[in-house]
Amino acid sequence: MAKEKKMVESITSMEEDFAQWYTDVVRKAELTDYTSVKGCMVIKPAGYAIWENIQQELDRRFKETGVQNVYLPMFIPESLLQKEKDHVEGFAPEVAWVTHGGMEQLQERLCVRPTSETLFCDLYAKDIQSHRDLPKLYNQWCSVVRWEKTTRPFLRSREFLWQEGHTAHATAEEAEERTIQMLNVYADFCEEVLAIPVIKGRKTDKEKFAGAEATYTIEALMHDGKALQSGTSHNFGDGFAKAFGIQYTDKENKLQYVHQTSWGMTTRLIGAIIMVHGDNSGLVLPPRIAPTQVVIIPIQQRKEGVLEKAGEVFESLKAAGLRARLDDSDKSPGWKFSEAEMRGIPVRVELGPKDIENGQAVLVRRDTREKITVSLDELAEKITELLDTIQKDMLERARRHRDTHTYTATNYEEFKQTIEEKPGFVKAMWCGCQECEDKIKEDVAATSRCIPFEQEHLSDTCVCCGKPAKKMVYWGRAY
Amino acid sequence: MAKEKKMVESITSMEEDFAQWYTDVVRKAELTDYTSVKGCMVIKPAGYAIWENIQQELDRRFKETGVQNVYLPMFIPESLLQKEKDHVEGFAPEVAWVTHGGMEQLQERLCVRPTSETLFCDLYAKDIQSHRDLPKLYNQWCSVVRWEKTTRPFLRSREFLWQEGHTAHATAEEAEERTIQMLNVYADFCEEVLAIPVIKGRKTDKEKFAGAEATYTIEALMHDGKALQSGTSHNFGDGFAKAFGIQYTDKENKLQYVHQTSWGMTTRLIGAIIMVHGDNSGLVLPPRIAPTQVVIIPIQQRKEGVLEKAGEVFESLKAAGLRARLDDSDKSPGWKFSEAEMRGIPVRVELGPKDIENGQAVLVRRDTREKITVSLDELAEKITELLDTIQKDMLERARRHRDTHTYTATNYEEFKQTIEEKPGFVKAMWCGCQECEDKIKEDVAATSRCIPFEQEHLSDTCVCCGKPAKKMVYWGRAY
Repeated sequence: MAKEKKMVESITSMEEDFAQWYTDVVRKAELTDYTSVKGCMVIKPAGYAIWENIQQELDRRFKETGVQNVYLPMFIPESLLQKEKDHVEGFAPEVAWVTHGGMEQLQERLCVRPTSETLFCDLYAKDIQSHRDLPKLYNQWCSVVRWEKTTRPFLRSREFLWQEGHTAHATAEEAEERTIQMLNVYADFCEEVLAIPVIKGRKTDKEKFAGAEATYTIEALMHDGKALQSGTSHNFGDGFAKAFGIQYTDKENKLQYVHQTSWGMTTRLIGAIIMVHGDNSGLVLPPRIAPTQVVIIPIQQRKEGVLEKAGEVFESLKAAGLRARLDDSDKSPGWKFSEAEMRGIPVRVELGPKDIENGQAVLVRRDTREKITVSLDELAEKITELLDTIQKDMLERARRHRDTHTYTATNYEEFKQTIEEKPGFVKAMWCGCQECEDKIKEDVAATSRCIPFEQEHLSDTCVCCGKPAKKMVYWGRAY
Repeated sequence: MAKEKKMVESITSMEEDFAQWYTDVVRKAELTDYTSVKGCMVIKPAGYAIWENIQQELDRRFKETGVQNVYLPMFIPESLLQKEKDHVEGFAPEVAWVTHGGMEQLQERLCVRPTSETLFCDLYAKDIQSHRDLPKLYNQWCSVVRWEKTTRPFLRSREFLWQEGHTAHATAEEAEERTIQMLNVYADFCEEVLAIPVIKGRKTDKEKFAGAEATYTIEALMHDGKALQSGTSHNFGDGFAKAFGIQYTDKENKLQYVHQTSWGMTTRLIGAIIMVHGDNSGLVLPPRIAPTQVVIIPIQQRKEGVLEKAGEVFESLKAAGLRARLDDSDKSPGWKFSEAEMRGIPVRVELGPKDIENGQAVLVRRDTREKITVSLDELAEKITELLDTIQKDMLERARRHRDTHTYTATNYEEFKQTIEEKPGFVKAMWCGCQECEDKIKEDVAATSRCIPFEQEHLSDTCVCCGKPAKKMVYWGRAY
């Protein structure tokens, strides 16, 4: 009983303390837990099942664009990491070093991969000779390590799970096309599957990936008005190719450097799902990503016929292709409701003796708590429809929240005040200088989230320095 | 053209040099490659696709028995690794140590997991309080590191991919039942999916896992007569529970220790597939695990209508649920045949202008090279049947090879001679003493593979020392 009680104890309300609310949800929905390894988390079954669904959906989308999966070592020799100057500067300060194997000290120390550009380059330098070998469209699912000082479950941890795509192309145009293509795959996935609307754009030079020519990003807005970078896609041009000597002979038999990209999404996405959709009763999972889409909770289950009928309903829902669960444990219906809410199951079915007599069941939506009485004959059909409706409504609600928390500012006082008082995105013009980014960061702890593809002309001058503006930028405080 | 040529160059024949044949197949079928990280391999698309199919099939079977997936850290603090005495003795000599994170030296060094018993115990000690929390049936897919001195692709490398199941139960009986249940899942998977027959049995104490009470194994026989341990399942009793303090209150409110198991399968299985089924033209993949089950190779593809028809056939095979590929590259049909053979694709379809005129195609089996002419109208159906036949025949052939290379010996001279002269399994009686195992290893470099569940009485005395025999054992040289 101790366990049950813990589950339904009230959690901190998000209005009171959003960070504590997040921690409570992560723990009480049993998504992760701390471990004896500082800064590293356990991803528990309820959390990992979400990641498995993310993997399955993304992997299918990658393969539809011709991507193949591979696996490269988790270690990178120090000399290999150092081959591309910007890259090593960006990553060396936060890697973990292996210095001993078995009983012996290694001749050269190895870092645990923080990302695998250098290993993919090493592979491509061997495997690419002719234009016939191009493009290479590889991806790998793995864990990576970055020695962060402060950590939070899913959002920032010393080890996290991700996928990293690495491609090599004959031309700069092809590489740019692939960079944008994968950014679009990410954006579509977030909107269609996670019900999270995103802003697509380019990172400023200050914020781009170490070694990239251009970094593109999708930025989402959390419930508390902070931004979360949710996926990035990098165009490396031929910088890595020159550092690693990745050349091919073109159709005219001339030696050319390849052009490369990389793109990644991580278990961070689970943090985004929690912070975009969750409420004060716990998780709210979009139906397309929910490990359990519908839970059947029998009422007065000891009465004759209730469990049998609940079992029948369960089988019929599974047969209809729904991810269903029957909670026939000996807890009270009230506990079960709270548990199902904490875990974010999109629909619950309440089925008691009265319902059975009337040939009906009561559906309760997790997102709105709306109750709908439905005939047992058309239960599977109605739930399938309802899940579609919930998925659409959740995206719509998140989009509305994002839009009502997106502001504009045309002078610096207004900009600073908006950042301080109205959590959300602030759209403002920018001159293109890093000095202004630095000043904004120092003044109000906000960063440039992206230079959106969809530009607007808000004014002629930079919101910070007043010099002529080059681009409109999304600014905000971020995770 | 350089690439094509490499693919179809003849490989070393297995009769001449089996080890070189293996290396040639692994390289030329493009399954793996060496890397700049000594002892670690790249798993290339053709190899990783096999692993993905293995994962999918095993994962489904695990989940049918109630197993849930989780993810634990890749690092283990030294103090945690040391909690179970036998376990640390077994693994400490071959682990990689992380000593620095970012710019700082760690206060306690961390090993990169060689296996995760200690981390699962750490988790279970926190999460298990009551009998209601049992059983815990967790599994994780990840990579592990063991600092091996000599390495070979798939068979032995410093990093490899695997799954590790870890369960906790209320009673010793339940733990034993789960240990055997998972061994049976492994054995069925090998026979049904990989077409590899296995011997199920128990490891001797000398060969068991560090920290286990009992280790069970499935042993397969490779084409060269050497054994390969293909999966293991361990019963830990309550040894780890006592070392880590994993206790629960039973229904009478008394504190009890849990009983635990673990079980694992690795990318080694790909080595087994190569060495059981391969031949002198390359890989031969069982249809159920083959990433591509059927390849369509157009003949005289520039003639009008050939590519169109090949495309139609391709679409119809995909629609029938077959994993099909159309090779419409500009290589000659001869190259394509050799490539398809090297890659082990179970069936190829040859389709030329004459065939199209006659409304037929020629199917060629990879395993027997038999050619079968089939009407285009019933192509998908016939190929589906043929794949089933190939799958059955491959298992049958492997079983016949195993059986004809399994010998018995009732005295030591006969035993040594058989081991030396007839590569394969040797069944012989054993007294139960490690001294005899040590002597046999020293005399003929053979090890006890397992004490099979299906015991036979071959004689009354140990084949080595002549003392009264306790068990019949499978002996052999092994990878």
